[in-house]
Amino acid sequence: MIKVSASIMCGNSMKYGEELRRLEEANVDLIHFDMMDGSFVPNIAMGLYLLEAMKKNTNIPFDVHLAAWEPSRYYEEIAGYGVEYLSIHAEAVKHLHRDIQKINSLGMGAGVVLNPATNANVLEYIIEDIKMVTVMTVDPGFAGQKFIPSQLKKIQEVKKMAEKYNKDLLISVDGNINANTIPNCVANGANVLVAGTSSIFKGDDADYKKLVEIMKESV
Amino acid sequence: MIKVSASIMCGNSMKYGEELRRLEEANVDLIHFDMMDGSFVPNIAMGLYLLEAMKKNTNIPFDVHLAAWEPSRYYEEIAGYGVEYLSIHAEAVKHLHRDIQKINSLGMGAGVVLNPATNANVLEYIIEDIKMVTVMTVDPGFAGQKFIPSQLKKIQEVKKMAEKYNKDLLISVDGNINANTIPNCVANGANVLVAGTSSIFKGDDADYKKLVEIMKESV
Amino acid sequence: MIKVSASIMCGNSMKYGEELRRLEEANVDLIHFDMMDGSFVPNIAMGLYLLEAMKKNTNIPFDVHLAAWEPSRYYEEIAGYGVEYLSIHAEAVKHLHRDIQKINSLGMGAGVVLNPATNANVLEYIIEDIKMVTVMTVDPGFAGQKFIPSQLKKIQEVKKMAEKYNKDLLISVDGNINANTIPNCVANGANVLVAGTSSIFKGDDADYKKLVEIMKESV
Amino acid sequence: MIKVSASIMCGNSMKYGEELRRLEEANVDLIHFDMMDGSFVPNIAMGLYLLEAMKKNTNIPFDVHLAAWEPSRYYEEIAGYGVEYLSIHAEAVKHLHRDIQKINSLGMGAGVVLNPATNANVLEYIIEDIKMVTVMTVDPGFAGQKFIPSQLKKIQEVKKMAEKYNKDLLISVDGNINANTIPNCVANGANVLVAGTSSIFKGDDADYKKLVEIMKESV
Amino acid sequence: MIKVSASIMCGNSMKYGEELRRLEEANVDLIHFDMMDGSFVPNIAMGLYLLEAMKKNTNIPFDVHLAAWEPSRYYEEIAGYGVEYLSIHAEAVKHLHRDIQKINSLGMGAGVVLNPATNANVLEYIIEDIKMVTVMTVDPGFAGQKFIPSQLKKIQEVKKMAEKYNKDLLISVDGNINANTIPNCVANGANVLVAGTSSIFKGDDADYKKLVEIMKESV
Amino acid sequence: MIKVSASIMCGNSMKYGEELRRLEEANVDLIHFDMMDGSFVPNIAMGLYLLEAMKKNTNIPFDVHLAAWEPSRYYEEIAGYGVEYLSIHAEAVKHLHRDIQKINSLGMGAGVVLNPATNANVLEYIIEDIKMVTVMTVDPGFAGQKFIPSQLKKIQEVKKMAEKYNKDLLISVDGNINANTIPNCVANGANVLVAGTSSIFKGDDADYKKLVEIMKESV
Repeated sequence: MIKVSASIMCGNSMKYGEELRRLEEANVDLIHFDMMDGSFVPNIAMGLYLLEAMKKNTNIPFDVHLAAWEPSRYYEEIAGYGVEYLSIHAEAVKHLHRDIQKINSLGMGAGVVLNPATNANVLEYIIEDIKMVTVMTVDPGFAGQKFIPSQLKKIQEVKKMAEKYNKDLLISVDGNINANTIPNCVANGANVLVAGTSSIFKGDDADYKKLVEIMKESV
Repeated sequence: MIKVSASIMCGNSMKYGEELRRLEEANVDLIHFDMMDGSFVPNIAMGLYLLEAMKKNTNIPFDVHLAAWEPSRYYEEIAGYGVEYLSIHAEAVKHLHRDIQKINSLGMGAGVVLNPATNANVLEYIIEDIKMVTVMTVDPGFAGQKFIPSQLKKIQEVKKMAEKYNKDLLISVDGNINANTIPNCVANGANVLVAGTSSIFKGDDADYKKLVEIMKESV
Repeated sequence: MIKVSASIMCGNSMKYGEELRRLEEANVDLIHFDMMDGSFVPNIAMGLYLLEAMKKNTNIPFDVHLAAWEPSRYYEEIAGYGVEYLSIHAEAVKHLHRDIQKINSLGMGAGVVLNPATNANVLEYIIEDIKMVTVMTVDPGFAGQKFIPSQLKKIQEVKKMAEKYNKDLLISVDGNINANTIPNCVANGANVLVAGTSSIFKGDDADYKKLVEIMKESV
Repeated sequence: MIKVSASIMCGNSMKYGEELRRLEEANVDLIHFDMMDGSFVPNIAMGLYLLEAMKKNTNIPFDVHLAAWEPSRYYEEIAGYGVEYLSIHAEAVKHLHRDIQKINSLGMGAGVVLNPATNANVLEYIIEDIKMVTVMTVDPGFAGQKFIPSQLKKIQEVKKMAEKYNKDLLISVDGNINANTIPNCVANGANVLVAGTSSIFKGDDADYKKLVEIMKESV
Repeated sequence: MIKVSASIMCGNSMKYGEELRRLEEANVDLIHFDMMDGSFVPNIAMGLYLLEAMKKNTNIPFDVHLAAWEPSRYYEEIAGYGVEYLSIHAEAVKHLHRDIQKINSLGMGAGVVLNPATNANVLEYIIEDIKMVTVMTVDPGFAGQKFIPSQLKKIQEVKKMAEKYNKDLLISVDGNINANTIPNCVANGANVLVAGTSSIFKGDDADYKKLVEIMKESV
Repeated sequence: MIKVSASIMCGNSMKYGEELRRLEEANVDLIHFDMMDGSFVPNIAMGLYLLEAMKKNTNIPFDVHLAAWEPSRYYEEIAGYGVEYLSIHAEAVKHLHRDIQKINSLGMGAGVVLNPATNANVLEYIIEDIKMVTVMTVDPGFAGQKFIPSQLKKIQEVKKMAEKYNKDLLISVDGNINANTIPNCVANGANVLVAGTSSIFKGDDADYKKLVEIMKESV
């Protein structure tokens, strides 16, 4: 039941097409696509054109993480590419309920991402309307950071809410997710594992299939 | 003396490594790299990680066009990659002189980009300090737009300033630059031609070398 | 004890004077005036001049809903018109306590509006200082949206806080309030009903008096 | 050839319908509609719903002055109402050329408004693409301010550009335009006169027809 | 165990050097330095150069309260002066966890300031990482305001969190702290008292030592 | 006729009172007070309280340089201190004409500061309304930078405008103004010299009187 969402930003950007082939063979469940505006997060990354091209080049469903101010500027474009899940930051919008309705109405599954310091109680009035919550286990913006243990408690709180209001909620963890951190994340309620440089993206010679299996076994 | 700067955003993003090989064989003079923040321009594109990876994968010099608010956030990072030219928008900063000094002091050649409606007189007090001016011949943000003829007059004005203050100034034109538009651009003073979808990026089977030659011959 | 606050934005803007007469005859308790800046909410509406003119044209007390960034820019002007209640968005200010004190000190009753996704716990440290809380039962900006059922729980939470700290608190509900939605709102603690297109503003021939009575009876 | 554009914000807001009737009888050429966001200018005024209602209630063409940041948020909505001219502030946008194309492409005539301190040279690269320039002869935001004489020189400069590039350009003056100020404005090149409280909006008993004639005669 | 942090902004700015001498003699535990940007708070005050100079002129440890947007712009500079504690506003940043890590990593003790309306639950996921929490007992920006009694409950909540997660947490109170307000603050958990115009800064003839003693005795 | 305006930010902040005494004895003509918001310029400095205190402590007229966004927030406060000249940045406001009128109406002499890259033509429509223009000869924010020679041409342009429209205009130069740079500045039209670390603020033992004389003689 645990899904692996491969963070393509951590792949080899000189041959994304090949990376997608390798991920298909590895049977990852989702492609995690980090779109960053350089202002909400301190890094510009992975824009619209790249998303469109990748979506055309694979059938793996997409889990887009839009780390940007005024994300609603991009909803229609992204929906037009056929993206399956689109997550936005609770901290980046003032009308979270409206944004979620808009994303859902465009045929995508709406998700909400929480920064490490953000309280899970911001989900209280919208949890029934979303498909996914992403608990950031590092501060968003860069690969290669340390896992933040206090987030385990937050996963648990999200899990509790899900049990009450939204049984099918995808609870994703993003940031240094690997065999060391997965058991605790899953034990507390995570069911989507964002895979980055510390788990599967270990270079051109890595065996993604095997590395995904190791992730799943570590549960 | 006319340089071709290949706008890599228009290349096939599934195999950027191969695109760089093809551009090397085509003897382009520069890689034009469009970094967009989704806020100064209505598109997020081509971030830091991608720039770093591309820079490592080719020896062609880079001409980075940073279309972003508060571009100074990125100068040190970009200089660290060894980028040759870094251009910012006159419209995006309030302390253009300071930003230019900073870029130059980091060992890059500073450039200034002008939006179509922007007057060339904004260059008056900094033209001696820069290496490149880019006249946008379309509104920045997207590929595939129409060339704006009024910009020819602006190229001419920049050329006049260059003759007075900065003889070696690179005068670049960016937006629908091809055999139809090149002659007028060059006649008015352009010496760097940004090549996009209408000139060389014509798909996986295109002969970049030949297409670059056509561009140069059209002068 | 239940008050009806007529949302004048939903009236016929070609004859606001006559609308005010009809509302006086209908014995509405308050005029709900939506002032929108087009930025905090995606609609510009109902500015200062209009507020001033309306205030002069009726003795019905005003319940101004200021959906704007930096609302403090307008407090003195609005107080100068003799407005009775002025409500601001908790999401729009960083110094909510200061803003409330300022509004109160100008002789108006301060109110706080909560967007659908906003947690009632933002009221914890200022509830004793305010006269009104408005629970948005639709996302602010437009008339004609669907009632959001999760807000009933929030009304209840506000009611609980009021019982503890502020017995006379006006608890207003705004968004698709009509005979269908009123019973639940009132049962959970609402005591001010914002009346819009779904309850009384049903065109030039509508009998406002009767429609207000229907609202009050539906309690 | 001189047009009068009646600034409806100065009319009696309690009976806008009747005001439109009176303006029709007075044969004004245009309705000047001031939409203000309270942030680009220090006043919120005259929003979308009011514009829509007014447009439905008269056949007089509309000259909308959108004094707002990020005006492009409203273009499609406003075009949908059938508005004839839509003017934006040169100071409020960074991509003036793009905004103008967008307005034109939606079937409206694009205009540019210049604040009193703004140099006419900002029009240099877009003058061929627009239908109207509005020279603010007071600072925008409020009725009842003093005419700024230095703007006559600016009208003249706009006129010169028009003679060179855009013979049919409407050159509008906005701010304390009346029999005293009209002769100088027209002598310098103005051909659209925005009429406010100092010329025609002189209360419910004023004879708009006569007052419009006085304006036209003062030329 | 109770510390006094002298708010140097309340001292005589014509002779800060002498003020520091008097504070040394008075054995204050900390210098509270209010750096304000005029935008997050409505007052510009006490900048970088002044901080640098003061730090060089005394050995009393510094407790810097940075009331500013994007405070991360100043961390390295401030750390370079040798500042001991640097506190930022929870309301001013979107990545509170990242900012705290950055401050700590530069060798300063990170603190978080809470505005009067801000809920203590914003500390839930970062309390283990910080050295100090400052509960504003007035709205930040100006000296001479009234103590806000509802903040006592917040001090208590912070105290409870500290007992659970961070036993050595400094809990500071800032705003009209004097013999009248100290007992309640301390009883609820405060252990750092910011001293301003109502306690020790009573003019050039005041006996700071005695006034500090009165503060400590009032506990 | 040449005035010296002593940049008090460069003085010893531990004893500003004494610094003012020394400047009085040195017969400086003006105190230049740099108020910085940390956002328009990358430094927070010299706030309202300090300005108020200094103004009370000397009779030397003040020349306040407000390097801040939305400077109008501070006009009334600053006028209340009795400040003689208040200058704002042309780059920081959108309604420069309005701001100037407001400053003048409060009894201060309005000034405009131009960043090094800013064209003098921004003064064209307001030059008749102001008392002072400050040409930044370094980028604002920090002491100790290099003089920018291209600004001499700008001084000349301002001078030409002054001869045409405003004979009594004070033309100030700010940034590394000393015996080396003064002759050129004055030859091109400057008549106010901002004195900083490179001319008079040379430490506690410096003879300000003599250093001011050297400045004046260098003319």
